[in-house]
Amino acid sequence: MKLLRIGAPGAERPVLLEIANDGHERYLNLSDIAEDIDGPFLASGGLDRVRAALAEGSLPELTPPAGGWRLGAPVARPGKVVCIGLNYRDHAEETGAAIPQRPVVFMKDPGTVVGPYDAVLIPRGSVKADWEVELAVVIGRRARYLDSSEEALACVAGYAISNDVSEREFQLEFSSQWDLGKSCETFNPLGPWLVTPDEVGDPQDLGLRLSVDGVPRQNGHTKNMIFDVAEIVRYLSQYLVLEPGDVVNTGTPAGVALGLPDQPYLRPGQTVELGIDRLGTQRQLFTDA
Amino acid sequence: MKLLRIGAPGAERPVLLEIANDGHERYLNLSDIAEDIDGPFLASGGLDRVRAALAEGSLPELTPPAGGWRLGAPVARPGKVVCIGLNYRDHAEETGAAIPQRPVVFMKDPGTVVGPYDAVLIPRGSVKADWEVELAVVIGRRARYLDSSEEALACVAGYAISNDVSEREFQLEFSSQWDLGKSCETFNPLGPWLVTPDEVGDPQDLGLRLSVDGVPRQNGHTKNMIFDVAEIVRYLSQYLVLEPGDVVNTGTPAGVALGLPDQPYLRPGQTVELGIDRLGTQRQLFTDA
Repeated sequence: MKLLRIGAPGAERPVLLEIANDGHERYLNLSDIAEDIDGPFLASGGLDRVRAALAEGSLPELTPPAGGWRLGAPVARPGKVVCIGLNYRDHAEETGAAIPQRPVVFMKDPGTVVGPYDAVLIPRGSVKADWEVELAVVIGRRARYLDSSEEALACVAGYAISNDVSEREFQLEFSSQWDLGKSCETFNPLGPWLVTPDEVGDPQDLGLRLSVDGVPRQNGHTKNMIFDVAEIVRYLSQYLVLEPGDVVNTGTPAGVALGLPDQPYLRPGQTVELGIDRLGTQRQLFTDA
Repeated sequence: MKLLRIGAPGAERPVLLEIANDGHERYLNLSDIAEDIDGPFLASGGLDRVRAALAEGSLPELTPPAGGWRLGAPVARPGKVVCIGLNYRDHAEETGAAIPQRPVVFMKDPGTVVGPYDAVLIPRGSVKADWEVELAVVIGRRARYLDSSEEALACVAGYAISNDVSEREFQLEFSSQWDLGKSCETFNPLGPWLVTPDEVGDPQDLGLRLSVDGVPRQNGHTKNMIFDVAEIVRYLSQYLVLEPGDVVNTGTPAGVALGLPDQPYLRPGQTVELGIDRLGTQRQLFTDA
Protein backbone atom coordinates (compact mmCIF):
# COMPACT_ATOMS: atom_id res chain seq x y z
CA MET A 1 0.00 0.00 0.00
CA LYS A 2 1.00 3.59 -0.62
CA LEU A 3 -0.20 6.03 2.02
CA LEU A 4 0.05 9.76 1.70
CA ARG A 5 -1.22 12.96 3.28
CA ILE A 6 -2.85 15.71 1.21
CA GLY A 7 -3.73 19.30 2.02
CA ALA A 8 -2.27 22.44 3.51
CA PRO A 9 0.58 22.22 6.06
CA GLY A 10 -0.83 21.21 9.42
CA ALA A 11 -4.21 20.27 7.91
CA GLU A 12 -3.31 17.19 5.88
CA ARG A 13 -5.76 14.33 5.41
CA PRO A 14 -4.79 10.65 4.98
CA VAL A 15 -5.20 9.04 1.59
CA LEU A 16 -4.37 5.72 -0.04
CA LEU A 17 -2.97 5.64 -3.55
CA GLU A 18 -3.49 2.72 -5.91
CA ILE A 19 -1.54 2.66 -9.16
CA ALA A 20 -2.81 0.17 -11.70
CA ASN A 21 -0.52 -1.66 -14.11
CA ASP A 22 -1.52 0.78 -16.85
CA GLY A 23 -0.44 3.70 -14.62
CA HIS A 24 -3.98 4.78 -13.74
CA GLU A 25 -4.06 6.32 -10.27
CA ARG A 26 -6.91 6.03 -7.77
CA TYR A 27 -6.92 8.06 -4.57
CA LEU A 28 -9.00 6.60 -1.72
CA ASN A 29 -10.02 8.69 1.26
CA LEU A 30 -8.90 7.27 4.62
CA SER A 31 -10.46 9.99 6.76
CA ASP A 32 -13.25 7.68 7.97
CA ILE A 33 -10.82 5.16 9.41
CA ALA A 34 -7.78 7.29 10.28
CA GLU A 35 -7.47 10.71 11.90
CA ASP A 36 -3.98 10.96 10.54
CA ILE A 37 -0.99 8.84 9.60
CA ASP A 38 1.12 9.17 12.70
CA GLY A 39 2.49 7.29 15.68
CA PRO A 40 -0.88 6.52 17.33
CA PHE A 41 -2.31 5.35 13.97
CA LEU A 42 0.60 3.00 13.37
CA ALA A 43 0.74 1.79 16.99
CA SER A 44 -2.96 0.90 17.00
CA GLY A 45 -2.95 -1.35 13.95
CA GLY A 46 -3.97 1.39 11.55
CA LEU A 47 -2.34 -0.28 8.57
CA ASP A 48 -4.39 -3.43 9.21
CA ARG A 49 -7.57 -1.36 9.30
CA VAL A 50 -6.67 0.25 5.99
CA ARG A 51 -5.94 -3.14 4.46
CA ALA A 52 -9.29 -4.49 5.66
CA ALA A 53 -11.21 -1.47 4.36
CA LEU A 54 -9.42 -1.77 1.05
CA ALA A 55 -10.39 -5.44 0.77
CA GLU A 56 -14.02 -4.55 1.58
CA GLY A 57 -14.01 -1.89 -1.10
CA SER A 58 -15.46 0.60 1.36
CA LEU A 59 -13.04 3.47 0.83
CA PRO A 60 -14.49 6.46 -1.06
CA GLU A 61 -12.54 7.68 -4.08
CA LEU A 62 -11.23 11.24 -4.27
CA THR A 63 -10.71 13.22 -7.45
CA PRO A 64 -7.52 15.25 -7.48
CA PRO A 65 -7.92 18.91 -8.41
CA ALA A 66 -6.23 20.18 -11.58
CA GLY A 67 -2.54 20.35 -10.72
CA GLY A 68 -2.98 17.87 -7.91
CA TRP A 69 -2.96 18.36 -4.17
CA ARG A 70 -0.16 19.66 -2.07
CA LEU A 71 1.41 16.63 -0.39
CA GLY A 72 2.55 16.60 3.20
CA ALA A 73 5.10 14.20 4.61
CA PRO A 74 3.44 10.76 4.66
CA VAL A 75 3.83 10.50 8.43
CA ALA A 76 2.84 13.35 10.74
CA ARG A 77 4.88 14.64 13.65
CA PRO A 78 7.61 12.01 13.99
CA GLY A 79 8.70 11.76 17.62
CA LYS A 80 12.29 11.75 16.43
CA VAL A 81 14.37 11.52 13.29
CA VAL A 82 17.41 9.30 13.78
CA CYS A 83 20.09 9.34 11.08
CA ILE A 84 22.90 6.98 10.17
CA GLY A 85 25.98 8.76 8.88
CA LEU A 86 28.56 7.47 6.40
CA ASN A 87 26.56 4.30 5.73
CA TYR A 88 27.60 3.86 2.11
CA ARG A 89 31.22 2.94 1.45
CA ASP A 90 31.52 5.34 -1.52
CA HIS A 91 30.08 8.28 0.47
CA ALA A 92 32.40 7.66 3.43
CA GLU A 93 35.30 7.67 0.98
CA GLU A 94 34.24 10.86 -0.82
CA THR A 95 34.06 12.75 2.47
CA GLY A 96 37.49 11.48 3.54
CA ALA A 97 36.04 9.58 6.51
CA ALA A 98 37.06 6.10 7.62
CA ILE A 99 34.61 3.24 7.04
CA PRO A 100 32.70 3.14 10.33
CA GLN A 101 32.98 0.06 12.53
CA ARG A 102 29.58 0.79 14.10
CA PRO A 103 26.66 2.85 12.80
CA VAL A 104 27.31 6.59 13.25
CA VAL A 105 24.11 7.86 14.87
CA PHE A 106 22.95 11.45 14.96
CA MET A 107 19.61 13.26 14.98
CA LYS A 108 17.67 15.87 13.08
CA ASP A 109 15.08 18.12 14.66
CA PRO A 110 11.82 16.28 13.78
CA GLY A 111 10.33 19.71 13.08
CA THR A 112 12.41 19.77 9.87
CA VAL A 113 10.13 17.21 8.20
CA VAL A 114 8.18 18.79 5.33
CA GLY A 115 6.35 17.58 2.24
CA PRO A 116 8.18 16.02 -0.72
CA TYR A 117 7.49 18.99 -3.05
CA ASP A 118 7.72 21.79 -0.49
CA ALA A 119 10.35 24.50 -0.90
CA VAL A 120 13.52 24.05 1.12
CA LEU A 121 14.91 27.14 2.81
CA ILE A 122 18.61 27.88 2.56
CA PRO A 123 19.44 29.33 5.98
CA ARG A 124 20.55 32.94 6.27
CA GLY A 125 24.32 33.08 5.97
CA SER A 126 24.52 29.59 4.52
CA VAL A 127 27.00 28.91 1.72
CA LYS A 128 27.22 25.13 1.96
CA ALA A 129 23.70 23.71 1.62
CA ASP A 130 23.93 20.15 0.33
CA TRP A 131 21.65 17.29 -0.68
CA GLU A 132 21.46 13.64 0.44
CA VAL A 133 18.99 11.14 -1.03
CA GLU A 134 18.22 8.48 1.57
CA LEU A 135 15.97 5.52 2.22
CA ALA A 136 13.81 6.48 5.20
CA VAL A 137 12.42 3.78 7.46
CA VAL A 138 9.18 4.57 9.28
CA ILE A 139 8.76 2.65 12.53
CA GLY A 140 5.42 0.92 13.12
CA ARG A 141 6.03 -0.96 16.33
CA ARG A 142 8.04 -0.17 19.47
CA ALA A 143 11.64 -1.37 19.02
CA ARG A 144 13.53 -2.03 22.27
CA TYR A 145 16.34 -4.55 22.76
CA LEU A 146 15.49 -6.54 19.66
CA ASP A 147 17.30 -9.87 19.28
CA SER A 148 17.30 -10.44 15.55
CA SER A 149 16.98 -9.03 12.06
CA GLU A 150 13.54 -10.62 11.80
CA GLU A 151 12.31 -8.78 14.88
CA ALA A 152 13.81 -5.57 13.52
CA LEU A 153 12.06 -5.81 10.15
CA ALA A 154 8.78 -6.61 11.92
CA CYS A 155 9.02 -3.11 13.51
CA VAL A 156 9.10 -1.39 10.10
CA ALA A 157 5.79 0.16 9.02
CA GLY A 158 7.16 1.14 5.65
CA TYR A 159 9.62 3.13 3.62
CA ALA A 160 9.84 6.56 2.03
CA ILE A 161 12.30 8.86 0.31
CA SER A 162 14.12 11.32 2.54
CA ASN A 163 16.26 14.26 1.52
CA ASP A 164 18.63 14.63 4.48
CA VAL A 165 19.48 18.23 3.59
CA SER A 166 22.71 19.33 5.27
CA GLU A 167 24.56 22.60 5.75
CA ARG A 168 28.19 21.50 5.73
CA GLU A 169 29.68 24.56 7.45
CA PHE A 170 27.18 24.33 10.31
CA GLN A 171 27.58 20.54 10.42
CA LEU A 172 31.32 20.11 10.15
CA GLU A 173 33.06 23.40 10.88
CA PHE A 174 31.17 24.89 13.82
CA SER A 175 31.71 22.03 16.29
CA SER A 176 32.37 18.30 16.43
CA GLN A 177 28.64 17.54 16.49
CA TRP A 178 26.63 17.39 13.27
CA ASP A 179 23.04 18.02 14.44
CA LEU A 180 23.08 21.81 13.99
CA GLY A 181 23.81 21.57 10.27
CA LYS A 182 21.19 18.84 9.87
CA SER A 183 18.36 20.58 11.72
CA CYS A 184 17.70 23.79 9.82
CA GLU A 185 14.10 24.68 9.01
CA THR A 186 12.58 22.49 6.20
CA PHE A 187 15.72 20.31 6.00
CA ASN A 188 13.90 16.98 5.79
CA PRO A 189 11.55 16.57 2.82
CA LEU A 190 9.86 13.18 3.25
CA GLY A 191 7.63 11.28 0.86
CA PRO A 192 5.71 11.29 -1.40
CA TRP A 193 4.39 8.03 0.05
CA LEU A 194 4.75 5.68 2.96
CA VAL A 195 5.06 2.37 1.11
CA THR A 196 4.45 -0.79 3.09
CA PRO A 197 7.14 -3.51 3.15
CA ASP A 198 5.07 -5.99 1.10
CA GLU A 199 5.20 -3.55 -1.85
CA VAL A 200 8.83 -2.58 -1.37
CA GLY A 201 10.24 -6.07 -1.15
CA ASP A 202 13.89 -6.32 -0.19
CA PRO A 203 14.96 -2.90 1.18
CA GLN A 204 18.52 -3.75 0.14
CA ASP A 205 17.49 -3.95 -3.51
CA LEU A 206 16.60 -0.33 -4.25
CA GLY A 207 18.29 2.12 -6.59
CA LEU A 208 18.52 5.73 -5.36
CA ARG A 209 19.14 8.78 -7.50
CA LEU A 210 19.27 12.55 -7.20
CA SER A 211 19.78 15.36 -9.69
CA VAL A 212 20.26 19.12 -9.36
CA ASP A 213 18.76 21.25 -12.13
CA GLY A 214 18.69 18.11 -14.23
CA VAL A 215 22.35 17.22 -13.66
CA PRO A 216 22.65 13.69 -12.22
CA ARG A 217 24.55 13.81 -8.93
CA GLN A 218 23.76 10.66 -6.95
CA ASN A 219 23.12 7.21 -8.36
CA GLY A 220 23.44 4.61 -5.66
CA HIS A 221 21.96 1.34 -4.52
CA THR A 222 20.90 0.17 -1.08
CA LYS A 223 22.88 -3.05 -1.55
CA ASN A 224 25.93 -0.89 -0.84
CA MET A 225 24.87 0.08 2.67
CA ILE A 226 27.51 -0.78 5.25
CA PHE A 227 24.80 -1.55 7.84
CA ASP A 228 21.55 -2.76 6.32
CA VAL A 229 18.05 -1.72 7.41
CA ALA A 230 17.51 -4.71 9.69
CA GLU A 231 20.87 -4.23 11.38
CA ILE A 232 20.31 -0.49 11.82
CA VAL A 233 16.97 -1.01 13.56
CA ARG A 234 18.31 -3.89 15.68
CA TYR A 235 21.42 -1.88 16.62
CA LEU A 236 19.52 1.28 17.52
CA SER A 237 17.12 -0.73 19.69
CA GLN A 238 20.03 -1.74 21.93
CA TYR A 239 20.62 1.88 22.90
CA LEU A 240 17.43 3.83 22.45
CA VAL A 241 13.73 3.10 22.03
CA LEU A 242 12.22 3.52 18.57
CA GLU A 243 8.52 4.34 18.75
CA PRO A 244 5.78 4.11 16.11
CA GLY A 245 5.98 7.12 13.81
CA ASP A 246 9.72 7.64 14.33
CA VAL A 247 11.80 8.01 11.18
CA VAL A 248 15.24 6.55 10.52
CA ASN A 249 17.29 8.01 7.66
CA THR A 250 19.65 5.25 6.61
CA GLY A 251 22.48 7.20 4.98
CA THR A 252 23.33 8.53 1.54
CA PRO A 253 25.44 7.19 -1.31
CA ALA A 254 28.26 9.14 -3.01
CA GLY A 255 27.66 12.26 -5.05
CA VAL A 256 26.91 15.01 -2.54
CA ALA A 257 28.31 18.50 -3.15
CA LEU A 258 30.77 18.10 -0.27
CA GLY A 259 32.39 15.20 -2.10
CA LEU A 260 32.49 16.67 -5.61
CA PRO A 261 35.68 18.34 -6.88
CA ASP A 262 34.11 21.79 -7.27
CA GLN A 263 31.71 21.44 -4.29
CA PRO A 264 28.66 22.86 -6.10
CA TYR A 265 26.60 23.72 -3.04
CA LEU A 266 22.97 24.65 -3.57
CA ARG A 267 22.02 28.23 -4.43
CA PRO A 268 18.56 29.82 -4.29
CA GLY A 269 16.58 28.98 -7.40
CA GLN A 270 18.01 25.52 -7.89
CA THR A 271 15.78 22.47 -8.03
CA VAL A 272 16.64 19.07 -6.59
CA GLU A 273 14.88 15.91 -7.76
CA LEU A 274 15.15 12.58 -5.94
CA GLY A 275 13.88 9.10 -6.61
CA ILE A 276 14.09 5.62 -5.12
CA ASP A 277 12.84 2.47 -6.84
CA ARG A 278 9.21 1.69 -5.86
CA LEU A 279 9.04 4.76 -3.56
CA GLY A 280 8.28 7.46 -6.15
CA THR A 281 10.03 10.77 -6.62
CA GLN A 282 10.25 14.14 -4.92
CA ARG A 283 11.35 17.58 -6.04
CA GLN A 284 12.26 20.75 -4.12
CA LEU A 285 12.96 24.31 -5.09
CA PHE A 286 15.66 25.79 -2.87
CA THR A 287 14.96 29.37 -1.80
CA ASP A 288 16.22 31.95 0.69
CA ALA A 289 15.05 31.65 4.29
CA MET B 1 4.73 30.58 39.13
CA LYS B 2 5.65 26.92 39.56
CA LEU B 3 3.81 24.57 37.22
CA LEU B 4 3.92 20.82 37.49
CA ARG B 5 2.19 17.71 36.23
CA ILE B 6 0.85 15.04 38.58
CA GLY B 7 -0.37 11.51 37.98
CA ALA B 8 0.59 8.30 36.24
CA PRO B 9 2.90 8.38 33.19
CA GLY B 10 0.91 9.49 30.16
CA ALA B 11 -2.06 10.59 32.31
CA GLU B 12 -0.59 13.61 34.10
CA ARG B 13 -2.74 16.61 35.02
CA PRO B 14 -1.51 20.21 35.25
CA VAL B 15 -1.16 21.84 38.65
CA LEU B 16 0.17 25.10 40.05
CA LEU B 17 2.23 25.08 43.24
CA GLU B 18 2.33 28.02 45.62
CA ILE B 19 4.90 27.96 48.43
CA ALA B 20 4.27 30.53 51.15
CA ASN B 21 7.08 32.23 53.03
CA ASP B 22 6.54 29.85 55.94
CA GLY B 23 6.97 26.88 53.58
CA HIS B 24 3.29 25.99 53.40
CA GLU B 25 2.44 24.45 50.04
CA ARG B 26 -0.82 24.91 48.13
CA TYR B 27 -1.57 22.87 45.01
CA LEU B 28 -4.08 24.46 42.61
CA ASN B 29 -5.79 22.43 39.91
CA LEU B 30 -5.28 23.80 36.40
CA SER B 31 -7.40 21.20 34.61
CA ASP B 32 -10.24 23.66 33.97
CA ILE B 33 -7.98 26.05 32.05
CA ALA B 34 -5.31 23.76 30.62
CA GLU B 35 -5.51 20.35 29.00
CA ASP B 36 -1.83 19.90 29.64
CA ILE B 37 1.40 21.86 29.96
CA ASP B 38 2.82 21.42 26.50
CA GLY B 39 3.68 23.26 23.31
CA PRO B 40 0.10 24.20 22.35
CA PHE B 41 -0.58 25.44 25.91
CA LEU B 42 2.53 27.62 25.92
CA ALA B 43 2.00 28.83 22.34
CA SER B 44 -1.56 29.94 23.06
CA GLY B 45 -0.81 32.17 26.05
CA GLY B 46 -1.50 29.47 28.60
CA LEU B 47 0.78 31.03 31.20
CA ASP B 48 -1.18 34.28 30.97
CA ARG B 49 -4.43 32.38 31.50
CA VAL B 50 -2.99 30.72 34.59
CA ARG B 51 -1.79 34.06 35.93
CA ALA B 52 -5.22 35.59 35.41
CA ALA B 53 -7.01 32.68 37.06
CA LEU B 54 -4.60 32.85 39.97
CA ALA B 55 -5.30 36.58 40.40
CA GLU B 56 -9.06 35.89 40.33
CA GLY B 57 -8.69 33.23 42.99
CA SER B 58 -10.72 30.83 40.85
CA LEU B 59 -8.39 27.83 40.91
CA PRO B 60 -9.59 24.91 43.07
CA GLU B 61 -7.15 23.57 45.66
CA LEU B 62 -6.02 19.96 45.60
CA THR B 63 -4.99 17.94 48.63
CA PRO B 64 -1.97 15.73 48.02
CA PRO B 65 -2.36 12.10 49.03
CA ALA B 66 -0.16 10.72 51.81
CA GLY B 67 3.27 10.33 50.25
CA GLY B 68 2.42 12.86 47.55
CA TRP B 69 1.67 12.39 43.89
CA ARG B 70 3.92 10.93 41.27
CA LEU B 71 5.31 13.88 39.31
CA GLY B 72 5.70 13.87 35.56
CA ALA B 73 8.05 16.13 33.67
CA PRO B 74 6.61 19.66 33.93
CA VAL B 75 6.26 19.92 30.15
CA ALA B 76 4.66 17.15 28.10
CA ARG B 77 6.02 15.76 24.84
CA PRO B 78 8.77 18.24 23.95
CA GLY B 79 9.14 18.46 20.19
CA LYS B 80 12.89 18.27 20.66
CA VAL B 81 15.56 18.37 23.32
CA VAL B 82 18.55 20.42 22.23
CA CYS B 83 21.70 20.21 24.34
CA ILE B 84 24.76 22.42 24.67
CA GLY B 85 27.95 20.47 25.36
CA LEU B 86 31.05 21.61 27.24
CA ASN B 87 29.38 24.87 28.29
CA TYR B 88 31.14 25.26 31.64
CA ARG B 89 34.85 25.98 31.59
CA ASP B 90 35.61 23.56 34.44
CA HIS B 91 33.65 20.71 32.79
CA ALA B 92 35.36 21.22 29.42
CA GLU B 93 38.69 21.05 31.24
CA GLU B 94 37.85 17.91 33.24
CA THR B 95 36.93 16.04 30.06
CA GLY B 96 40.13 17.14 28.32
CA ALA B 97 38.22 19.14 25.68
CA ALA B 98 39.18 22.57 24.37
CA ILE B 99 37.05 25.56 25.41
CA PRO B 100 34.53 25.75 22.56
CA GLN B 101 34.53 28.83 20.32
CA ARG B 102 30.86 28.27 19.47
CA PRO B 103 28.15 26.35 21.32
CA VAL B 104 28.48 22.60 20.78
CA VAL B 105 24.98 21.50 19.83
CA PHE B 106 23.63 17.97 19.98
CA MET B 107 20.25 16.35 20.64
CA LYS B 108 18.61 13.85 22.90
CA ASP B 109 15.63 11.74 21.88
CA PRO B 110 12.71 13.76 23.38
CA GLY B 111 11.20 10.40 24.39
CA THR B 112 13.88 10.21 27.12
CA VAL B 113 12.11 12.88 29.17
CA VAL B 114 10.69 11.40 32.39
CA GLY B 115 9.56 12.68 35.77
CA PRO B 116 12.02 14.12 38.30
CA TYR B 117 11.66 11.20 40.74
CA ASP B 118 11.22 8.39 38.20
CA ALA B 119 13.72 5.55 38.10
CA VAL B 120 16.46 5.84 35.49
CA LEU B 121 17.31 2.67 33.58
CA ILE B 122 20.96 1.73 33.11
CA PRO B 123 21.01 0.26 29.59
CA ARG B 124 21.84 -3.39 29.08
CA GLY B 125 25.59 -3.76 28.65
CA SER B 126 26.26 -0.28 30.00
CA VAL B 127 29.27 0.24 32.26
CA LYS B 128 29.66 4.02 31.96
CA ALA B 129 26.34 5.61 32.99
CA ASP B 130 27.02 9.15 34.17
CA TRP B 131 25.13 12.13 35.61
CA GLU B 132 24.93 15.79 34.53
CA VAL B 133 22.94 18.42 36.43
CA GLU B 134 21.82 21.14 34.02
CA LEU B 135 19.65 24.20 33.82
CA ALA B 136 16.88 23.39 31.33
CA VAL B 137 15.23 26.16 29.37
CA VAL B 138 11.65 25.57 28.24
CA ILE B 139 10.69 27.52 25.13
CA GLY B 140 7.41 29.42 25.21
CA ARG B 141 7.46 31.30 21.92
CA ARG B 142 8.76 30.43 18.46
CA ALA B 143 12.44 31.42 18.19
CA ARG B 144 13.68 31.99 14.63
CA TYR B 145 16.48 34.36 13.57
CA LEU B 146 16.37 36.38 16.76
CA ASP B 147 18.39 39.58 16.77
CA SER B 148 19.16 40.15 20.43
CA SER B 149 19.48 38.72 23.91
CA GLU B 150 16.25 40.50 24.84
CA GLU B 151 14.32 38.76 22.08
CA ALA B 152 15.88 35.47 23.14
CA LEU B 153 14.85 35.77 26.78
CA ALA B 154 11.33 36.75 25.68
CA CYS B 155 11.08 33.27 24.09
CA VAL B 156 11.73 31.52 27.41
CA ALA B 157 8.62 30.15 29.16
CA GLY B 158 10.58 29.06 32.20
CA TYR B 159 13.29 26.94 33.70
CA ALA B 160 13.62 23.50 35.23
CA ILE B 161 16.24 21.07 36.44
CA SER B 162 17.45 18.52 33.91
CA ASN B 163 19.58 15.45 34.50
CA ASP B 164 21.31 14.98 31.14
CA VAL B 165 22.12 11.33 31.85
CA SER B 166 24.89 10.08 29.57
CA GLU B 167 26.44 6.71 28.73
CA ARG B 168 30.05 7.60 28.05
CA GLU B 169 31.00 4.48 26.10
CA PHE B 170 28.02 4.86 23.78
CA GLN B 171 28.58 8.63 23.57
CA LEU B 172 32.33 8.86 23.09
CA GLU B 173 33.72 5.47 22.05
CA PHE B 174 31.19 4.11 19.55
CA SER B 175 31.37 6.96 17.02
CA SER B 176 32.19 10.65 16.73
CA GLN B 177 28.58 11.61 17.40
CA TRP B 178 27.26 11.83 20.96
CA ASP B 179 23.48 11.41 20.53
CA LEU B 180 23.39 7.62 20.98
CA GLY B 181 24.86 7.80 24.48
CA LYS B 182 22.52 10.66 25.38
CA SER B 183 19.30 9.09 24.13
CA CYS B 184 18.85 5.91 26.13
CA GLU B 185 15.44 5.21 27.66
CA THR B 186 14.62 7.45 30.69
CA PHE B 187 17.86 9.46 30.25
CA ASN B 188 16.29 12.90 30.81
CA PRO B 189 14.59 13.41 34.17
CA LEU B 190 13.04 16.89 34.09
CA GLY B 191 11.44 18.94 36.85
CA PRO B 192 9.99 18.97 39.45
CA TRP B 193 8.59 22.31 38.25
CA LEU B 194 8.50 24.66 35.32
CA VAL B 195 9.36 27.94 37.07
CA THR B 196 8.54 31.14 35.21
CA PRO B 197 11.31 33.72 34.62
CA ASP B 198 9.81 36.28 37.04
CA GLU B 199 10.39 33.81 39.90
CA VAL B 200 13.80 32.65 38.72
CA GLY B 201 15.33 36.08 38.20
CA ASP B 202 18.73 36.13 36.53
CA PRO B 203 19.30 32.67 35.00
CA GLN B 204 23.05 33.31 35.31
CA ASP B 205 22.78 33.55 39.11
CA LEU B 206 21.84 29.98 40.03
CA GLY B 207 23.83 27.44 41.99
CA LEU B 208 23.61 23.82 40.76
CA ARG B 209 24.48 20.74 42.77
CA LEU B 210 24.34 16.97 42.46
CA SER B 211 25.18 14.12 44.81
CA VAL B 212 25.38 10.34 44.40
CA ASP B 213 24.33 8.28 47.42
CA GLY B 214 24.84 11.41 49.49
CA VAL B 215 28.38 12.10 48.20
CA PRO B 216 28.57 15.61 46.70
CA ARG B 217 29.78 15.40 43.12
CA GLN B 218 28.80 18.61 41.31
CA ASN B 219 28.64 22.08 42.81
CA GLY B 220 28.56 24.69 40.07
CA HIS B 221 27.06 28.04 39.24
CA THR B 222 25.40 29.27 36.06
CA LYS B 223 27.61 32.39 36.12
CA ASN B 224 30.34 30.06 34.83
CA MET B 225 28.55 29.17 31.60
CA ILE B 226 30.68 29.91 28.53
CA PHE B 227 27.55 30.83 26.54
CA ASP B 228 24.73 32.20 28.68
CA VAL B 229 21.04 31.35 28.29
CA ALA B 230 20.22 34.38 26.14
CA GLU B 231 23.15 33.73 23.83
CA ILE B 232 22.31 30.03 23.53
CA VAL B 233 18.72 30.74 22.48
CA ARG B 234 19.77 33.54 20.12
CA TYR B 235 22.52 31.38 18.60
CA LEU B 236 20.30 28.33 18.11
CA SER B 237 17.65 30.49 16.45
CA GLN B 238 20.11 31.35 13.66
CA TYR B 239 20.29 27.70 12.61
CA LEU B 240 17.14 25.92 13.72
CA VAL B 241 13.65 26.86 14.85
CA LEU B 242 12.83 26.50 18.53
CA GLU B 243 9.13 25.89 19.09
CA PRO B 244 6.98 26.25 22.22
CA GLY B 245 7.47 23.21 24.44
CA ASP B 246 11.00 22.50 23.21
CA VAL B 247 13.64 21.99 25.88
CA VAL B 248 17.23 23.25 25.82
CA ASN B 249 19.71 21.68 28.24
CA THR B 250 22.39 24.29 28.79
CA GLY B 251 25.36 22.19 29.84
CA THR B 252 26.82 20.80 33.05
CA PRO B 253 29.53 22.02 35.43
CA ALA B 254 32.51 19.91 36.54
CA GLY B 255 32.14 16.81 38.67
CA VAL B 256 30.77 14.12 36.38
CA ALA B 257 32.08 10.55 36.72
CA LEU B 258 33.94 10.84 33.41
CA GLY B 259 36.05 13.66 34.86
CA LEU B 260 36.77 12.16 38.30
CA PRO B 261 40.05 10.33 38.92
CA ASP B 262 38.40 6.95 39.65
CA GLN B 263 35.49 7.43 37.19
CA PRO B 264 32.78 6.16 39.56
CA TYR B 265 30.09 5.44 36.97
CA LEU B 266 26.60 4.68 38.22
CA ARG B 267 25.65 1.18 39.27
CA PRO B 268 22.15 -0.23 39.82
CA GLY B 269 20.86 0.68 43.26
CA GLN B 270 22.55 4.07 43.43
CA THR B 271 20.55 7.24 44.00
CA VAL B 272 21.29 10.60 42.40
CA GLU B 273 19.98 13.85 43.89
CA LEU B 274 20.07 17.17 42.04
CA GLY B 275 19.15 20.71 42.92
CA ILE B 276 19.24 24.17 41.39
CA ASP B 277 18.52 27.38 43.31
CA ARG B 278 14.84 28.34 43.07
CA LEU B 279 14.04 25.30 40.86
CA GLY B 280 13.66 22.65 43.57
CA THR B 281 15.28 19.23 43.70
CA GLN B 282 14.99 15.87 42.00
CA ARG B 283 16.10 12.35 42.89
CA GLN B 284 16.43 9.17 40.84
CA LEU B 285 17.12 5.57 41.69
CA PHE B 286 19.24 3.97 38.98
CA THR B 287 18.15 0.42 38.09
CA ASP B 288 18.77 -2.21 35.44
CA ALA B 289 16.93 -1.82 32.13
